Amino acid sequence: MESPQKFRIALDAMGGDYAPRHEVEGAVQALRSHGSTIGLTLIGDERAIRAELARLGAENLPLEIIHASQTITMEDAPTAALKQKRDSSLSVGMHLHKEKKTDAFVSAGNTGAVFSAATLILGRIKGISRPTIGAFIPSEIGVCFLVDAGANIDCRAQHLYEFALMGSIYSKYILKKENPRIGLLNVGEEKTKGTSVALEAYRMLSSGSLNFIGNVEGGDILKTKADVVVCDGFVGNIVLKFGESVPGFLKNRLKQFSQKGLLEKISIAVSLWPLKSSLRDLDPNESGGVPVLGVNGVAVIGHGSASPKGIKNMILCAAEVARLEVNRHIESSLSDVHLISSQS
Amino acid sequence: MESPQKFRIALDAMGGDYAPRHEVEGAVQALRSHGSTIGLTLIGDERAIRAELARLGAENLPLEIIHASQTITMEDAPTAALKQKRDSSLSVGMHLHKEKKTDAFVSAGNTGAVFSAATLILGRIKGISRPTIGAFIPSEIGVCFLVDAGANIDCRAQHLYEFALMGSIYSKYILKKENPRIGLLNVGEEKTKGTSVALEAYRMLSSGSLNFIGNVEGGDILKTKADVVVCDGFVGNIVLKFGESVPGFLKNRLKQFSQKGLLEKISIAVSLWPLKSSLRDLDPNESGGVPVLGVNGVAVIGHGSASPKGIKNMILCAAEVARLEVNRHIESSLSDVHLISSQS
Repeated sequence: MESPQKFRIALDAMGGDYAPRHEVEGAVQALRSHGSTIGLTLIGDERAIRAELARLGAENLPLEIIHASQTITMEDAPTAALKQKRDSSLSVGMHLHKEKKTDAFVSAGNTGAVFSAATLILGRIKGISRPTIGAFIPSEIGVCFLVDAGANIDCRAQHLYEFALMGSIYSKYILKKENPRIGLLNVGEEKTKGTSVALEAYRMLSSGSLNFIGNVEGGDILKTKADVVVCDGFVGNIVLKFGESVPGFLKNRLKQFSQKGLLEKISIAVSLWPLKSSLRDLDPNESGGVPVLGVNGVAVIGHGSASPKGIKNMILCAAEVARLEVNRHIESSLSDVHLISSQS
Repeated sequence: MESPQKFRIALDAMGGDYAPRHEVEGAVQALRSHGSTIGLTLIGDERAIRAELARLGAENLPLEIIHASQTITMEDAPTAALKQKRDSSLSVGMHLHKEKKTDAFVSAGNTGAVFSAATLILGRIKGISRPTIGAFIPSEIGVCFLVDAGANIDCRAQHLYEFALMGSIYSKYILKKENPRIGLLNVGEEKTKGTSVALEAYRMLSSGSLNFIGNVEGGDILKTKADVVVCDGFVGNIVLKFGESVPGFLKNRLKQFSQKGLLEKISIAVSLWPLKSSLRDLDPNESGGVPVLGVNGVAVIGHGSASPKGIKNMILCAAEVARLEVNRHIESSLSDVHLISSQS
């Protein structure tokens, strides 16, 4: 019997808010459950990493450690930090991947810095003008992939078209949607609605070969009207952060209610079970992370507050993106984009 | 004793999805509870209005009816409909207000058409380049006023500044916020974040006399970080509609959960009380409606699906906007805007 293909993932052990603790614990979990298909290289402060491994009784796990003396923090300005901290775990790890010594790179660190490093160090896929990051938004019957989620603030129609194309491929191969429905986020369903950029993007998407279902409104995201919702990163970031704040808002409202009396307190206690259960997939740790789409490599970004489980899921996500050759599919779809853009 | 000042409100009786039924019922409720301070003129199909009054046993209430033979529907294109349907209840009612025969105009009809009619028929307040509509978003400890909520899709910084100014005055006089905190909706707190329009708006707001607290993010809206959140109508419409879809999303998720078994069903039944109670103010019928800000008059727009209570609250809202002279306050604040814009 042939042994399964093994993917080597570089993990930024110093990235997240709870690094290196959550990072190392997530790595250990990933190796223990998927050690036959995944190899790991941890980048960061070797002594701190070894201390965490010892704490977990995992000194003998077969993982590689590469020391990096610097860390890019959440407060660092992305581009400046990349220039100044050349021995940061992020920079060292991304270069390692660039040199094909790993199949992917994973970080729960400064999103802007990881995105910049991926774009600058790995480079763009030929034909992609703007790499992007998407985000998962839970919807009524599953999940909606929102792209761009904040990486590109000012966008032209061509960029939105590229986001749609990359989002479609990601949704098809990673999220297993048969023929992903692409919606353009807009202020009305009619094709005459929206900004001049939205009007032009509508035209391009209508002429392309994607499964474009037209404009979708803010209220359609949670309704699962589209599998992929396309927008610029300004709108995407605002919608995403608004959505992420909903569970906290509910929790606070219910807390206020429970303070009214005993009966209220009891009813809240009963409510927590169905609420938590129904909203479990709002937890970003479940999905793991999102890849930078459009770069020559696999770079997966996670939430800064990722739990060990979240880190483990990011590692598994990165292995899937590498195994299913998402980038090759993007490259082979690009002839279509150029056909469209050359008409405009 | 002096009798209280009485405000005459023109009501588009044919506007909403349930017109004239909800409109007439709301009007009757308003007159029965506030007849000493409010007078009403109902515009629309006189026979249909009288039939509703008869149904409610309210034939003898002192309200005026002005017949209008046409109705602008929710599907009508705003500007074209205003040109073609000159005897529509919307057009007749707005002209009546323009001629100072009423103190305000109220409609739960086609939002775009009411906004266009207000702008075209009443005209802009001198110094305001773009009239606007805001929206109430419930927040953790009250309500946040989001402006613009969809009326102006493409905006320059000057427009955002005007929205902030009008939103501040509305928040102060109608929502009774002492010194309303103004936030600029953006993708980060730092003043270097966002589109070129956002950067310029930040600069203008910082130099002005409003209580500008800086950029706020999507996640800050429900947290009540600002009393007034300023954005263009593209972003505002999308955030608003996303927010409006949250209760339906929760309901569906909980329904799915309750179908798992008996215990689940019981826990959901218990949960409904605290949930409904905690989220009551997400019901747009509670706030009543929102005025078109920046026009020479008082035009209040409500949700198409407004209940009779919603219609009543719209009427009361319009009377408040007239009584508290919101427009006069906007006019007297405009010197500040011009000071700012002349520097740029």
